[in-house]
Amino acid sequence: MVSEERAIGVDVGGTTTKAGVVDGAGKILSRLEVPTDPTAGTKGIIRAVEQLLDGLGGEPTGVGVGVAGFVDAARGVVTFSPNLAYDDPHIADALRTRVNVPVFVDNDANAAVWGERSFGTARGLDHVAMLTLGTGIGSGFVVDGKLLRGKTGSAGEFGHLVIDPHGPVCPCGLRGCLEQFASGGAIARAARRAVQDDPGSSILNFAENAASITGADVAHAAREMDETARRVMREAGAALGIGLVNIVNVFDPEVIVLGGGAVAAGEPFLGSARDTMNGMLAAQRRRPQRLDLALLGTDAGLVGAAALALQP
Amino acid sequence: MVSEERAIGVDVGGTTTKAGVVDGAGKILSRLEVPTDPTAGTKGIIRAVEQLLDGLGGEPTGVGVGVAGFVDAARGVVTFSPNLAYDDPHIADALRTRVNVPVFVDNDANAAVWGERSFGTARGLDHVAMLTLGTGIGSGFVVDGKLLRGKTGSAGEFGHLVIDPHGPVCPCGLRGCLEQFASGGAIARAARRAVQDDPGSSILNFAENAASITGADVAHAAREMDETARRVMREAGAALGIGLVNIVNVFDPEVIVLGGGAVAAGEPFLGSARDTMNGMLAAQRRRPQRLDLALLGTDAGLVGAAALALQP
Repeated sequence: MVSEERAIGVDVGGTTTKAGVVDGAGKILSRLEVPTDPTAGTKGIIRAVEQLLDGLGGEPTGVGVGVAGFVDAARGVVTFSPNLAYDDPHIADALRTRVNVPVFVDNDANAAVWGERSFGTARGLDHVAMLTLGTGIGSGFVVDGKLLRGKTGSAGEFGHLVIDPHGPVCPCGLRGCLEQFASGGAIARAARRAVQDDPGSSILNFAENAASITGADVAHAAREMDETARRVMREAGAALGIGLVNIVNVFDPEVIVLGGGAVAAGEPFLGSARDTMNGMLAAQRRRPQRLDLALLGTDAGLVGAAALALQP
Repeated sequence: MVSEERAIGVDVGGTTTKAGVVDGAGKILSRLEVPTDPTAGTKGIIRAVEQLLDGLGGEPTGVGVGVAGFVDAARGVVTFSPNLAYDDPHIADALRTRVNVPVFVDNDANAAVWGERSFGTARGLDHVAMLTLGTGIGSGFVVDGKLLRGKTGSAGEFGHLVIDPHGPVCPCGLRGCLEQFASGGAIARAARRAVQDDPGSSILNFAENAASITGADVAHAAREMDETARRVMREAGAALGIGLVNIVNVFDPEVIVLGGGAVAAGEPFLGSARDTMNGMLAAQRRRPQRLDLALLGTDAGLVGAAALALQP
C-alpha cells in the first residue's frame, strides 16, 4: 500500500546534512538537519539514519542517500567526492549492516531530479532536466523515465560543461565551466569584482566588506534596483540561459527544473536566463521550452533520496 | 533466423542518398548511391527503396531510413529538416503503402550510432556517443541501451552545443556552436582566412583559389607539413577536444565514436582532439576516455538505418 510506505531520505550537502522520513506521497513526516562533518563521511550518514530510525518505531521501506560526487549506483559506492572524505565509500553496504531494508545511493543532483519527477513539478514525466543552482551547479537528467548515470556514474555533470574556453578556471580542473558563470558562487565573485568599480553600490550595504559578499547580498541589492547588482544578475542569467539552450539541444526535455538556493535571486537572475533562452531558441526556430522552479524547493534532494527507495 | 534477415537501409545525406540491402550480420548485400534531389523528399526515398526491392526478389524484414533533421521516430515523421524539402513528412506512412513490412525513420546521426552499436566498434555497448564530422557535426547517443531522442525527437544535437558565446554565427541561428569550430566546414573556413596571411601556404596548391578551399585540401597540405594547414587542424582539433570533454561530463559513455568524412584528416586533426581531451580529463582527475573511429566508416548511416529495422 503506497500510503503505508515510509522511506528514509538523506541529502548530504557540503555544509548541511538533511534527513527525513518520507511517506509514499512524498510528504516529509519527520526531519533532521545537522551540519555536515566533512570528516565523518559514511559514519555521519549512518548516524543520521539511526536517529531517524529511533523515532520511527519500525523498519522503513528503504533508505535513499544522495551525496555530492560520482556514485556507482548499482553498488552504492561513492567513487569520487569533491569536498567530503568517505572513510568507507561503500555507503550502501555499510548502511545495510544497520538496516535490513533496501538501500539506494546516488548523486545528490540525481536525487533532486528524481524527487521532482516523483513528487514535484515534473511528476510522471519521462524527459526531465534539473539544475540545482547553489555555490556550484548540480544537474540531473531523467531520460526515457530513467536517471542518466553513464557507464561509471559520472554522467550528468552539466555544471562542468565548458561554455567558454577563455573563461575562468574552475576547481574541477577545467576552464570556463557553466558553474563559473551562472551559480550563486559565480554571482558573488562577479559582484566582488564589480564593487571595485562601483564602491557606492548598495551591495556593500548588505555585506561586511567586498570580500564577504554573497549571492544573497547581490540579490538584496538587485531587488532595491542597484544597477551594479542588476548587471551582475543579468550577466549570470544570460550565461545560465546559454546553459539552458545547451540542455534543450542535447536532451529536448519536457521540462527543465531549476532548484537550489540561488533561485531565490528571482527575476533579475531568472528573467535574464529565460529571456536569453527564449531568444536563442527562437533564433533556432525551436519550440518554446517549459522552465519550472523546483516544487520541493531545497527539500528536493531529501525527498528525492527517499523517492529512490520508494520508486526505484 | 538472424542469417536470413535482410533489411533495407536508406541514408539521406545533403548531397548523396545511399541505400542498401543489409543482412542480419550487418553486411551490405547490395547498394545504390544517387545524388540527393533536394526537392524530391519522400518521393526520392521511395524511389530508392523500390529500386532495391526490384533486385531483392522478396520482402525485406523491414526498412529503416535516416534523414537529417528532427524526426518523431514513434510516428516516423520528419518534423524539421534544415536542407531538404519533404513534400510529405510522413515518411513511414508513405513507405508502408509500398512495402508491407515495418518501417523505422530516425535522425541520420541516430542511425549512424545505432549502426556502430549494432555492427561496429561499439557493438553491444549500452553507453555510446558518436559524432559524425562532415560539413557540419551530427551526433547520436545511446543511453542505457536506447537511442536518446528526447520529447519531440530533437535531442542529441551536440553539434549545436554553444562552446563559445563570442564565436561565429551558425546557420542554426546560434553563435559559437561546436560545429563552427570543429567540423570539416569549419576547417575549410579557417583555412580560407589563414591563407590571406600566408599566401605561400601549400594549401593553395590543392585548391583552385582561396574561396574554394575544402577540408580535404587542408588535410593534404597538413600531411605535407604545411605549417598553416597544421595550425588550422590543431585549432579545430582542440575545439573538438573541448566537445569530447563536454560529452564525457554529460554522458560518461563507454566509447565515443568519431565518423564522417572529416576523420580522413587524420592525426593533425584527431591527434590534437585526443591530446586536448586527455589533458582536460586528467586535469579533472577523470578516467581516460575510450575514443574510436567508426568501424563502418561512411556506411555507418546506411547500415545503422537498416539496423533500426533489424534490431529495433
